[in-house]
Amino acid sequence: MNARKIPDIIIGRLPVYLRALQRMADMGLKTTSSQELGEHVGISAAQIRKDISQFGEFGKQGTGYSIEYLIDKLREILKVNRIWHVVVVGAGDMGHALANYQGFRDRGFHIVAIFDKDKDKVGEKIGAFRVEDAETMVERIRELGVKVAMMTVPATAAQAVADQLAQAGVKAILNYAPISLNVPGGVKVQYIDPSTHLQRMTYYL
Amino acid sequence: MNARKIPDIIIGRLPVYLRALQRMADMGLKTTSSQELGEHVGISAAQIRKDISQFGEFGKQGTGYSIEYLIDKLREILKVNRIWHVVVVGAGDMGHALANYQGFRDRGFHIVAIFDKDKDKVGEKIGAFRVEDAETMVERIRELGVKVAMMTVPATAAQAVADQLAQAGVKAILNYAPISLNVPGGVKVQYIDPSTHLQRMTYYL
Repeated sequence: MNARKIPDIIIGRLPVYLRALQRMADMGLKTTSSQELGEHVGISAAQIRKDISQFGEFGKQGTGYSIEYLIDKLREILKVNRIWHVVVVGAGDMGHALANYQGFRDRGFHIVAIFDKDKDKVGEKIGAFRVEDAETMVERIRELGVKVAMMTVPATAAQAVADQLAQAGVKAILNYAPISLNVPGGVKVQYIDPSTHLQRMTYYL
Repeated sequence: MNARKIPDIIIGRLPVYLRALQRMADMGLKTTSSQELGEHVGISAAQIRKDISQFGEFGKQGTGYSIEYLIDKLREILKVNRIWHVVVVGAGDMGHALANYQGFRDRGFHIVAIFDKDKDKVGEKIGAFRVEDAETMVERIRELGVKVAMMTVPATAAQAVADQLAQAGVKAILNYAPISLNVPGGVKVQYIDPSTHLQRMTYYL
């Protein structure tokens, strides 16, 4: 299915479709159309049809998409038809928020450990977790075989932590620090930076 | 400058360029090239030149861009050459994280109030703020003239809160709830949903 190279911009929209479809399923809906899905996510029906058709024929002309079927297919394409173990680095406010966040489990993710280099935080209980010493991080990640990490460390520490994560075998980093990271080929990075999102809207004000 | 319609996808990249340029300025750099900037943000030099040229001629062939000048121009284009007052709705973990986040002020944003509907949280002190009663929110936002809000409420409450924010005159909503919002024309919404970002990376694993 991944034999052809699908543009990353399309891959980026699939989780948004998946989220909207899961919400529709939660509301008890069985089928949807590209028009209806488009209204939910603010993307044109034509674009949605084009994106989804990259992966095969999922809808029928006139009857639309089976929500359950499309959810299954998108979960398969995005490889979240399994649970990915995730580590959190940084036990500050954002680390707390992520450790307690309820929105990971049914989206394919399960936090397994949280690290901090501050000895005062090591051992602290956050929800179901006890903060572990960042000094043991590389070894622990290798041991656990974790491939996905979320970084909520200060900008000044971010590059060094990213280097350690890559060294430990992590292949996907969600970075909350407002700094661009250099990572080896084969390691993906996504950024969550509220100021960037806000600036994208103020342009229109 | 906004006479021509600039595609939203380009607008979305400008804050990323701005963040990288501000980082370069912090490091004491004076000039940069589209190549160098591209390496920092993971976007091709050609794309960067094309994006920036939408707004005029900012670089000189051979000498590159003046970082300070380009920062000034991008801040002007994105309308963050001023301070936007922002409210936070929801005083849970994420509300705490945002209220204490140091990365807003020098990016054009200043949090002025935080609301929660939980009476047990009202009055609680978070950093420099005291949590205010969500019942007073619409009136307070109108009074303060705030146009920008960040929502960290549960998914089940998100649409109702968005309706109230729109009613109060808010024009830009950063939504942390994992749900697509329906808002009136003229109101912009951006979503921060860590699962969506993670799913975008697991595709490649």
